[in-house]
Amino acid sequence: MSVLIVGSIAFDTIITPFDNRKRLLGGACIYGSLACSLFCKPFIIGVVGKDFKDSHFNFLRKKGIDTSGIVKVNGKTFFWKGRYNYDMKTRQSLKTDLNVFENFNPEISNKHKNLPFLFLANIDPELQLKILNSMNNLKFSICDTMDYWIKNSKKNLMKVLKKVNCVVLNDEEIREFSGSFDLIKGAKFIQKIGPEYVIIKKGEYGASIFGPDFYFSIPSYPVENVIDPTGAGDTFGGAFIGYIAKHNKINKKIIKNAIAYANTIASFTVEDFGINKLSKITILDIKKRINKLKQIVIF
Amino acid sequence: MSVLIVGSIAFDTIITPFDNRKRLLGGACIYGSLACSLFCKPFIIGVVGKDFKDSHFNFLRKKGIDTSGIVKVNGKTFFWKGRYNYDMKTRQSLKTDLNVFENFNPEISNKHKNLPFLFLANIDPELQLKILNSMNNLKFSICDTMDYWIKNSKKNLMKVLKKVNCVVLNDEEIREFSGSFDLIKGAKFIQKIGPEYVIIKKGEYGASIFGPDFYFSIPSYPVENVIDPTGAGDTFGGAFIGYIAKHNKINKKIIKNAIAYANTIASFTVEDFGINKLSKITILDIKKRINKLKQIVIF
Repeated sequence: MSVLIVGSIAFDTIITPFDNRKRLLGGACIYGSLACSLFCKPFIIGVVGKDFKDSHFNFLRKKGIDTSGIVKVNGKTFFWKGRYNYDMKTRQSLKTDLNVFENFNPEISNKHKNLPFLFLANIDPELQLKILNSMNNLKFSICDTMDYWIKNSKKNLMKVLKKVNCVVLNDEEIREFSGSFDLIKGAKFIQKIGPEYVIIKKGEYGASIFGPDFYFSIPSYPVENVIDPTGAGDTFGGAFIGYIAKHNKINKKIIKNAIAYANTIASFTVEDFGINKLSKITILDIKKRINKLKQIVIF
Repeated sequence: MSVLIVGSIAFDTIITPFDNRKRLLGGACIYGSLACSLFCKPFIIGVVGKDFKDSHFNFLRKKGIDTSGIVKVNGKTFFWKGRYNYDMKTRQSLKTDLNVFENFNPEISNKHKNLPFLFLANIDPELQLKILNSMNNLKFSICDTMDYWIKNSKKNLMKVLKKVNCVVLNDEEIREFSGSFDLIKGAKFIQKIGPEYVIIKKGEYGASIFGPDFYFSIPSYPVENVIDPTGAGDTFGGAFIGYIAKHNKINKKIIKNAIAYANTIASFTVEDFGINKLSKITILDIKKRINKLKQIVIF
């Protein structure tokens, strides 16, 4: 089964207290589709500038990613430069040049409209809504968002939430959106708006999901050397939908395993800069960690 | 099997954004021994003032707690007044009157010296060390501490860590003590000093333990209505040692279950002010939540 992934494609300059890298291939769409490609075929919709090379396209295609929805236009690709603090969690954005991403408003082709699975990465909810309204055969859709949209586009975000099956948020986003400091109350509040599934990403603490009739929570796979946390959340989203699409079934067992796999695959992403490690791992590497994770939580 | 618990006995005035209570019976020793009493007989060592009534002693004795190690002296019992923020996690101390607790330096009786299990709640490491050095038949000992001692009594705390089997810390304490932002590196650093077991309390995110040959991590039992988080950590410590003492065995299975039970019992504590809920629950209530928790983490 195939997955449509819509979001940013970027070059990231990343500074940590220990090291730095310049102009790495990044953006939610890239992390998401690489993670998804471990399970099934992702179709990207995104926009890039003239600085996006054939080698980048070739790299993605070799990973089995359909890049026909990437539009190349005059201008530069979205560029982000950020510095992580010593906690390797909080960060400052030093530069955010939206460039060609500023006017991102893709036409959805017929090929894309008929895909059964959809991951809407963190983009303007208005755009998320447009894409959702274009889809003809959706089986399962998931959206990400951020504090900026919760504060400034809540109306449109509400409309998105009425349409998607699942939303992925972190603690602060749930609190911001629901107005409740209690995460459980907050998640239930959001479920009532629409999505049957509300995922709470907790970073180093793992992830939880509120389903229609169950609650599942899992600690993160223990990573001793966090090199660069960029893209962990997008990896999570892409792996989650990829796992579901591969099994082409939605039930408690599949959803729980999708969370466990998504969580585990994100643990690889943070072990090197950018997509370095994510683009090298195999299903065998992942299964080894999954088996360890099962041992970690069983009692 | 019996457990010696040494720590503060206090009256707490607790203010939350939603409600407040005045002069509730509290302190690490009280929360710890009530939690421990669900599994086996706790022996308290502590100090109180003239405002500590017979009714308080009777309440503890009815719970099967040996209070012969509570010394009543001239003066007032330790008093703490604090206000929780809207997150129901962070707080400000509005008043801390150590009173009789300021000169707490107990003599350890022969009866207490021979007890096989020991929970050293958060007190001056010098005192923790004195107690550890008095014990004749220790099978398993656990200590708690706080940022103040890590900053101001690190030498003595190091000596304590060389002697105990287990230390329980939160994220910030591990980072403060080890100088590493990475919790796994921090926990391993502390293990090398002495304790085979390092527990990381993560509050609403659950708890993890680093054992000599295993790692175990568990999310918290989901609590929708946190009324008062006071004493959750002390509940955890007391329940943990109580579970181990009851089974009188130390192995991976027992330790994992002790963490799960400790975590779960703390989930009751936060559902009402002070010890209100903790002092009313039964093993049956706990087992129900343990079974739910097993379902929550399995995948």
